[in-house]
Amino acid sequence: MHEWQYSERARKLTSSAIREILKVTERPEVISFAGGLPSPATFPVTQMRAAAERVLTDAPQAALQYSATEGFAPLREWVARRYSRDGLTLAPENVLITTGSQQGLDLIGKIFIDEGSRVLVEAPSYLGALQSFSLFSPVYVPVPTDEHGLLPEALTPDLVSGARFLYAMPNFQNPTGRRLPMPRREALAALARRDGLVIIEDDPYGELDYEGQRLPSLMSLAPEHVLYMGSFSKVLAPGLRLGFIIAPPAVISKLVQAKQAADLHTPSLTQRIAYEVVKDGFLDTHIPSIRTLYAAQAQAMLTALAKHMPADATWTAPAGGMFIWLTLPAGIDTMQLLEKAIAQNVAFVPGAPFYVGTPQTNTLRLSFVTVPPEKIEAGVSRLGALIAETLTRRAA
Amino acid sequence: MHEWQYSERARKLTSSAIREILKVTERPEVISFAGGLPSPATFPVTQMRAAAERVLTDAPQAALQYSATEGFAPLREWVARRYSRDGLTLAPENVLITTGSQQGLDLIGKIFIDEGSRVLVEAPSYLGALQSFSLFSPVYVPVPTDEHGLLPEALTPDLVSGARFLYAMPNFQNPTGRRLPMPRREALAALARRDGLVIIEDDPYGELDYEGQRLPSLMSLAPEHVLYMGSFSKVLAPGLRLGFIIAPPAVISKLVQAKQAADLHTPSLTQRIAYEVVKDGFLDTHIPSIRTLYAAQAQAMLTALAKHMPADATWTAPAGGMFIWLTLPAGIDTMQLLEKAIAQNVAFVPGAPFYVGTPQTNTLRLSFVTVPPEKIEAGVSRLGALIAETLTRRAA
Repeated sequence: MHEWQYSERARKLTSSAIREILKVTERPEVISFAGGLPSPATFPVTQMRAAAERVLTDAPQAALQYSATEGFAPLREWVARRYSRDGLTLAPENVLITTGSQQGLDLIGKIFIDEGSRVLVEAPSYLGALQSFSLFSPVYVPVPTDEHGLLPEALTPDLVSGARFLYAMPNFQNPTGRRLPMPRREALAALARRDGLVIIEDDPYGELDYEGQRLPSLMSLAPEHVLYMGSFSKVLAPGLRLGFIIAPPAVISKLVQAKQAADLHTPSLTQRIAYEVVKDGFLDTHIPSIRTLYAAQAQAMLTALAKHMPADATWTAPAGGMFIWLTLPAGIDTMQLLEKAIAQNVAFVPGAPFYVGTPQTNTLRLSFVTVPPEKIEAGVSRLGALIAETLTRRAA
Repeated sequence: MHEWQYSERARKLTSSAIREILKVTERPEVISFAGGLPSPATFPVTQMRAAAERVLTDAPQAALQYSATEGFAPLREWVARRYSRDGLTLAPENVLITTGSQQGLDLIGKIFIDEGSRVLVEAPSYLGALQSFSLFSPVYVPVPTDEHGLLPEALTPDLVSGARFLYAMPNFQNPTGRRLPMPRREALAALARRDGLVIIEDDPYGELDYEGQRLPSLMSLAPEHVLYMGSFSKVLAPGLRLGFIIAPPAVISKLVQAKQAADLHTPSLTQRIAYEVVKDGFLDTHIPSIRTLYAAQAQAMLTALAKHMPADATWTAPAGGMFIWLTLPAGIDTMQLLEKAIAQNVAFVPGAPFYVGTPQTNTLRLSFVTVPPEKIEAGVSRLGALIAETLTRRAA
């Protein structure tokens, strides 16, 4: 294979330095806050086993045969019904089932991004989305955020004009854990309606608000302008690779054509198993149990942070989701900190890669969901000592 | 959504006319030779059910959690072992598990095709591959074929020079059913080695040779230059969406990065179920049973064609796979014939869309695997009458 035989996008692909560093976190002695994995303790194993048995007994041939690109019809209907709320009425034609939410990002990149297209993203933004969109060579425009998330007033006409879309995660954002307040949602929706801005609302964590105080989606406020991305990964199980996009039928139709070329359809078997599990209201009792677990884990980390972090560090106190965003005293580079941390068997994700513009290099992301509370305390304690040591050395 | 907000590739996407016409073939009264579906009678339902039960009992959390982009390690090992033959020795590092073979096409398009890249394809070639590659805007160069498939001598230095790859299906090609003879395989491999031509060897039907007389793969003849694409769709079940690419590790590494952005990984559950089914040699007895069934179905169609087709029609007599390619007397346009055929409740796929250059419009593809023999006879009889009628009207 010669270098010239690869596409330009393939030549740009390089294995991420962070990914390489984080490979060592698979060692059992490492306390890893780096993962983005949901807790396997929340997987409804019994229900899955029963569902698989039913599907492969009642409709085995359909579950094993090719099926429609749009997705399993009852599952599309279920999604349409569930998200018909906050004044919004959806039909199955508004729904495309995807092979995980990640595929949704790939399909959206395919149908919206040409080389050089301007794409607006939060600063910081979800790394997996940036990686996916980057294959289509956009020009990213970072949108400033504060402690409540994206700043709608930063979306000036200059910024918005000609942009293909704004990609945003309004609920418990990855990486910051922030939730966008209602007035900002309304401002964003008004802007989308006024300027025709397309918004990609990525919402994998929306159901995981610890208090069960859901805020209306951007989609419900501007349905003609929003593509909503949902996922079964955080409320059921990520290994199924099941997500969905809700959008106007004309957009769904473009996405369906792109999906046909991408994998023909999402596996029939996993779609039918998921439908069997959720169809009779299982999530109504299951999701609250995940919320309770994650809220307790978040609290354990917040307590540990208050105890072990230096006075001038700040962090988000998430009302849901899986992440805390830590901002250290200016001048501490968290990429360098990571190498030291790993030497002491504790891991996190440095903040820099989440930025498309100038990164805030003194930030980092902590996930608290898969680490038991006593290890959270131990890991945060080690991290605090390392940071204190770095500060002392700098002051000396 | 405004038109300008879509990418150029999305603006080119239009629903295929044929797809629209063929939607009616889902009516039960239609005898459809249009499908590309394997026979559900061959799906190993009992084994699948037992495997799902075992996977969700023995390793439920791993089967439901995120997993490696490269694929389930034991399944990669199994593929590497199975294809280590004809003098070739493979390691798991040569294997990437994909979400169906269709995803392999998408990933290959991503890492090899820039806008305007020259891509060599057989004339005719597999429609699903053309659709997938087209999203990356190549310039297709058709390579002439005869009744034995691709003509290696047509691959002149002018044609090969600068081409990103040749896409070929040497075994029981979709749509023609042709198998490339051994001397042509050797000529192709020699050419790849000499000129550095990259060959994409798409082989979903290779295991379905009715006589069990497998020919060595192009990969085994030029492993440094070939990406081999395999699939579980035709030997196990397509609804699992499981395929794989075998290639040199450096290429796999690029594909893995592209796959990470495409869907993170293929569902853990389906990979583990498939592995459970195949790991102890199940395919050794299962595949021969599919071969026997398909051979009988092919024979039923060949018998019907001999009985009902006009003297100057010709067709392929496949030694394996799922398709027969029919060439009608010059001047009969099979797109027009399809509309008449559907009015009489019989369907096929016209040949024209399988060509990237000037189409042979008097050709059509017949699938024989899902239609019972008595319906094959009835359907081919109707088709023969229609063709005779068209010829008579033309002569009048």
